[in-house]
Amino acid sequence: MIIRIRVAWRVSLGLIGTVLSYLAIPLTFPLMIAIYYGEPVEPFLVTIAATLILAFGMNALSADGDLNVRETFLAVSLIWLLVAIIGAIPFLVAGNGTTAHPINAFFESMSGITTTGATVMLDFNAHTQSIMMWRQLIQWLGGLGILVLATAILSEAGVGGAQLMESETWTTTVNKLTPHIAETARILLGLYAAITVLAVILLYSLHLVGVAPKMTLYNAIAHAFTSVATAGFSPEPTSAEAFSPIVQWALVVCMFVGATSFALIYFVLTGKDFQRFRDNEEFRFYLGTIILATGLVATAVTLDPLTTLKVEETVRHAIFNTVSILTTTGYASTNYDIWSPAAKHILFACMFIGGMVGSTTCSIKALRWLVVIKAFQRELFTTVHPSVVRPIRVSNTPVDEETVRDVYGFVLLSLVLAFGLTVFIVVDAARVGLRVSEFEAMGAAAATFLNIGPAFGRAGPYGSYHAFPATTKTAMILLMWIGRIEIIPVLTLFTRAFWRL
Amino acid sequence: MIIRIRVAWRVSLGLIGTVLSYLAIPLTFPLMIAIYYGEPVEPFLVTIAATLILAFGMNALSADGDLNVRETFLAVSLIWLLVAIIGAIPFLVAGNGTTAHPINAFFESMSGITTTGATVMLDFNAHTQSIMMWRQLIQWLGGLGILVLATAILSEAGVGGAQLMESETWTTTVNKLTPHIAETARILLGLYAAITVLAVILLYSLHLVGVAPKMTLYNAIAHAFTSVATAGFSPEPTSAEAFSPIVQWALVVCMFVGATSFALIYFVLTGKDFQRFRDNEEFRFYLGTIILATGLVATAVTLDPLTTLKVEETVRHAIFNTVSILTTTGYASTNYDIWSPAAKHILFACMFIGGMVGSTTCSIKALRWLVVIKAFQRELFTTVHPSVVRPIRVSNTPVDEETVRDVYGFVLLSLVLAFGLTVFIVVDAARVGLRVSEFEAMGAAAATFLNIGPAFGRAGPYGSYHAFPATTKTAMILLMWIGRIEIIPVLTLFTRAFWRL
Ligand SMILES: [K+]
Ligand SMILES: [K+]
Repeated sequence: MIIRIRVAWRVSLGLIGTVLSYLAIPLTFPLMIAIYYGEPVEPFLVTIAATLILAFGMNALSADGDLNVRETFLAVSLIWLLVAIIGAIPFLVAGNGTTAHPINAFFESMSGITTTGATVMLDFNAHTQSIMMWRQLIQWLGGLGILVLATAILSEAGVGGAQLMESETWTTTVNKLTPHIAETARILLGLYAAITVLAVILLYSLHLVGVAPKMTLYNAIAHAFTSVATAGFSPEPTSAEAFSPIVQWALVVCMFVGATSFALIYFVLTGKDFQRFRDNEEFRFYLGTIILATGLVATAVTLDPLTTLKVEETVRHAIFNTVSILTTTGYASTNYDIWSPAAKHILFACMFIGGMVGSTTCSIKALRWLVVIKAFQRELFTTVHPSVVRPIRVSNTPVDEETVRDVYGFVLLSLVLAFGLTVFIVVDAARVGLRVSEFEAMGAAAATFLNIGPAFGRAGPYGSYHAFPATTKTAMILLMWIGRIEIIPVLTLFTRAFWRL
Repeated sequence: MIIRIRVAWRVSLGLIGTVLSYLAIPLTFPLMIAIYYGEPVEPFLVTIAATLILAFGMNALSADGDLNVRETFLAVSLIWLLVAIIGAIPFLVAGNGTTAHPINAFFESMSGITTTGATVMLDFNAHTQSIMMWRQLIQWLGGLGILVLATAILSEAGVGGAQLMESETWTTTVNKLTPHIAETARILLGLYAAITVLAVILLYSLHLVGVAPKMTLYNAIAHAFTSVATAGFSPEPTSAEAFSPIVQWALVVCMFVGATSFALIYFVLTGKDFQRFRDNEEFRFYLGTIILATGLVATAVTLDPLTTLKVEETVRHAIFNTVSILTTTGYASTNYDIWSPAAKHILFACMFIGGMVGSTTCSIKALRWLVVIKAFQRELFTTVHPSVVRPIRVSNTPVDEETVRDVYGFVLLSLVLAFGLTVFIVVDAARVGLRVSEFEAMGAAAATFLNIGPAFGRAGPYGSYHAFPATTKTAMILLMWIGRIEIIPVLTLFTRAFWRL
């Protein structure tokens, strides 16, 4: 029997090859850092060579044709997977610290490209400046990738209600002007790069005026990369605690912007349609959840009899860590793992919220929760008033019922997968005799699958995922990948209908 | 300003009054037990008097009129609440043990009427035989109440996709023959009573033939009440472990029947439409989840290096405790709390499944999960094949899209509320300095809100909810109530649209 594959996979290879060949360009940045600091250049030369060979091979095997949904999903899934594999090569070739081990290198790289920010490193000093910058840079690239993916691809395919975004702000105007992925990608790259440069300037100027002694140019670039990408790696083992309060406030701004819809930013900056900004319910919801969660965390910390924080510190750390987790960045301005159960549970809940659709944020995202809440309210209403037909509206635009259903499905699937990973972590830890509490496991599962990064306990902000067994790390790698590209594209690959119908 | 209430609440009072006046009849049963054993009769005389006075008062205030959705929801919510309050009176008047305290008495009573089976008792010997039988009986009454509610009311109002049941088996045939709630209730009462009598005969005959020494007539009645109602209270502090293996197998059958759709049982028994039974996908799913979960639990127990169970014991305890939790009964044949994390997590996951719609089971229920799984599969399919329109079918009947959405909403709301209660339990315990682990809290939250009963640790099968602070117990009482009557009816009471539009 001949199995007929109906997916034009050679077309997918063409897209993958193109993306990989572009990847060689940013790889020259850590190479230059290595040259500047006199560090080994092999990690990057080898990786650039591997990338170009792979890209060349892909292009040789590729065929022309239309990128339909399936070809795109296949390409997207493989791009994230292959870039994670390529991203691991510098760690392996450098061969320092825990990331000399293949599973750890792959974990760190997948955590990077998915903008997760969970680390398996133990001693940060074991690694060179260039390797640490590569770690920061892949997060920035991952942020760019997700911007393009979310705006140009997922919204078109209607993944988990992502079509909402289309009806909302971006594609109806921008994509009609610029109907090709490449053009959309160019606009996004320009905007993203501009915001990143502004972040570098902001952070480094704090250093220059003397209020941020540790925020060198290196650190300014490193933190601009991972804040705007809501990604969260830091070359400092104590993350943002290493910096002065003013730097922490600046990072709050960067994270906040990174998790704001880039379409919205584009509209505000170009002054094209300010009304859209004022009408944007998702933005208000995003801001509202930050204010509410910060207030709850600050209250919980204040009521904690064991707190040693002064009022200014309480407010600053509450805002910083709430924004960090809610935007799915994952920096820490203090070890919030020692906070009370109340404060930690609020942060845990924030993991599931996320920033705005069409930003670099991960997790479920504000827009989906807004739809869920409105749908709940509507269901309560229509149950007692069955004769009333009341469509759900977001930002004055009706949301069609199919989208409501897709959003529900997406949220539910996310919760089920996060729970599944939790159980895996607990059971796997028990198997090898590692003590992992339920809350640690819940946190680690959510923090990897929803691409937050750090969680609590062993996986806490100053901890490391290194201690987890290789099987758990592999499961986390898999779920970081699935979670980052919005679950559905990867899952469809495992259905018969994807390949055969 | 005059606030105009648009709900015909006096009509609701009429229904409540009627139900309460019927409640006096079963109250004579523990009264007779008390007389038989020479125990105080005041607990029941006082309660009968209180019930009749309340019923009389309600009827005096009531008005004639149509019971529309709102009047019905108001009546249903208040019936469960008032019966729980009335059910607490015998405990308070008896004044023995922990249930002498009002919050505890209310907890035990609400746990009874909602068929939860979570107990705050510590020393079972502190209570009289008649009080213990009252505790069993309110569970049986709660089971009857939920059968009538689910079949005659919720399916009509379409709560959380409960309209599926209508299109499925019961109301299309039975309700067309018997269009009134009273007639449906009469059929259900007959069927339910008949099954209960069969259970008594089964259990007591095991005693009479000498294979079940402890299964006296008292115990046979007590366990028939709480197994068929999937409710789980037992007068024995070690639950079903107190009995011989053959009794445990018999109880498995009773629990399994209790969580089977009573419409399906009715069809099979009356031989009216056997095809419906063969086509019933929900029944296959229900059976399938039991087999799968039992297999997983048995495997987990076998792989546990610390297990002391022989093969027969492993199989029996895996089946018993899986069926117990999956049907939301909550008996235990052994202290499964000492099992491995893997086994306990499978049992925890089973808490969220439940038996069939239209039975006495609680939790989310097989039918809803079946719809969710089919909707997930369909979403994966239609994402890659957008042009294909494929309705979801359950038992060969198409499910309309509104129902799919309602089911999603219901499942999601259940998970969110279970998580909310978990956080409340952890934070409240930390407040009073009580050590409660996350997993204990998750278990206790799910076990109360989803009406399972026992969970793990402190709230384990041989444990007690007594140690939780009064605030936590109050939250649990509230969520047992909300959970048992399928969430939506209670939540609608807290919307403005319920009262004013
Ligand atoms: K992150
Ligand atoms: K129960």
